[in-house]
Amino acid sequence: MYDLIIIGMGISGISATIYAKRNGLNVLMLEESAPGGTLNKIANINNYPGINNISGPDFAMNLFNEINNLNITYKLEKVTDVILTELKTVKTINNVYHSKYLLIATGRKPKFLGLPHEQEFLGKGISTCALCDGALYKNKEVAVVGGGESALSESIYLSKICKKVYLIHYKEEFRSSNTTIEDLKKQTNIEIILNNKVNKIIVEDNTFKGIELNDKRLDVSCLFIYIGSTPNTEFLNGTDIKLDNNYIVVNNNYETNIKGVYASGDVIKKDIYQLINAASEGAIASINIGKL
Amino acid sequence: MYDLIIIGMGISGISATIYAKRNGLNVLMLEESAPGGTLNKIANINNYPGINNISGPDFAMNLFNEINNLNITYKLEKVTDVILTELKTVKTINNVYHSKYLLIATGRKPKFLGLPHEQEFLGKGISTCALCDGALYKNKEVAVVGGGESALSESIYLSKICKKVYLIHYKEEFRSSNTTIEDLKKQTNIEIILNNKVNKIIVEDNTFKGIELNDKRLDVSCLFIYIGSTPNTEFLNGTDIKLDNNYIVVNNNYETNIKGVYASGDVIKKDIYQLINAASEGAIASINIGKL
Repeated sequence: MYDLIIIGMGISGISATIYAKRNGLNVLMLEESAPGGTLNKIANINNYPGINNISGPDFAMNLFNEINNLNITYKLEKVTDVILTELKTVKTINNVYHSKYLLIATGRKPKFLGLPHEQEFLGKGISTCALCDGALYKNKEVAVVGGGESALSESIYLSKICKKVYLIHYKEEFRSSNTTIEDLKKQTNIEIILNNKVNKIIVEDNTFKGIELNDKRLDVSCLFIYIGSTPNTEFLNGTDIKLDNNYIVVNNNYETNIKGVYASGDVIKKDIYQLINAASEGAIASINIGKL
Repeated sequence: MYDLIIIGMGISGISATIYAKRNGLNVLMLEESAPGGTLNKIANINNYPGINNISGPDFAMNLFNEINNLNITYKLEKVTDVILTELKTVKTINNVYHSKYLLIATGRKPKFLGLPHEQEFLGKGISTCALCDGALYKNKEVAVVGGGESALSESIYLSKICKKVYLIHYKEEFRSSNTTIEDLKKQTNIEIILNNKVNKIIVEDNTFKGIELNDKRLDVSCLFIYIGSTPNTEFLNGTDIKLDNNYIVVNNNYETNIKGVYASGDVIKKDIYQLINAASEGAIASINIGKL
């Protein structure tokens, strides 16, 4: 029996843990992949005030060190189910845990195009993580699909490794910060293709061969997909927790519609999805739980 | 003429600047003392996720380096007056600046006891900054007045330098995190004096000699005052900006009641005053300004 179970060891969950520990709460953290969550997939972070240009995995490692210094109990187990009565029950593949309060900080995962072969060739020509897979395509030609901050900054990252990067966006304009767009345009080996779409993943002899756009075929070695995210809330199916487009709805205290159940970070419905906000929200949720 | 003037170079203002720059805004920062603001007066920071135990001045220096890397224009000038028409006018002692938008991130300053001799002996027996002045009292006896997080953590800091620390609080219980209280009680040279008050600053031969409590005199070499804070909003006198107990009232976008005027960090009315929240608020204010 814990005071607080935090699902998700990304920046929001870890921020919450730091404050929970300060308030003397007995905390269990659960994470299905690696501590740091999405951070592990980001090449460069330069928008977290106080930290000047750090790789995502290094940032994740710093956070993990904080957790260890504070002697926080954590388990790398996937949560499959929760029961949100007065006592909170959290089921993982192997275990069942109980707590007084629950904080959901499970973040988001990449969206896919929904094309045939997409899932089958993940890691073999299809990727959602330039940092993880970019080095496999050194001096080769690759494509990135997407038009937001991630698509652009990961294209820049790939342009330093790959021979050529095609950046494909279905609209006329990018949805990104001015500095990133400027930086993008400085890279001579990025070819920007606007008003176009990836219509087909080309597979020949059971091998990824490239992609087909509206008007041409690109024989690239890999397609990196950065077309947005979707919240990790499947394990909440069957609960009465209020969602909006699968994002968790919270009030100003970061409490959900269910008493004692809080949520923070990229998994909640909000306007701005930045690391610094996720960290702040975790702290606020945790401080409010500490007052209960 | 700037797009945005940010008053205050503490963590909230600097966070806002990072995002304003990303959005291509032409920014001027104004600060009356040193870049980093209040950070320069904090001995140890261990509640900012991602940064493991750093001194306040080191943190301030990291932020200042970020400002310089981004080529942000800043001036170390005290703001005396603002005129909040459609065009925003900011007057400092020597200059007048104009901008489309204004962000106020001026933070807070220490409260004083209001006793005779208090201001007169500031720096000569009275201090509001253990980090700045603690070393002057090596192996001497000092007193700290206050019962919150700052009073306790700065008492612990002083206990490593000074021979003895008297910690005086007017209530029965501290208003601080459990971990800090535990840490406090481990220090053998801190004497906790509860339910007591500093009634008089003792001056003899024009020299600070100690303090008088309800029932005893303490011949300490310095009194450190940590009894809370008050927002830096004097320069807003004469404007129509909405204040609550001198704190600036903002909406969920961190905009004040005056169009185009935003505020973030410790200067605003809110529940939780932590560095990580101030950083987050600055980012949100700035992102919202970028959308205008």
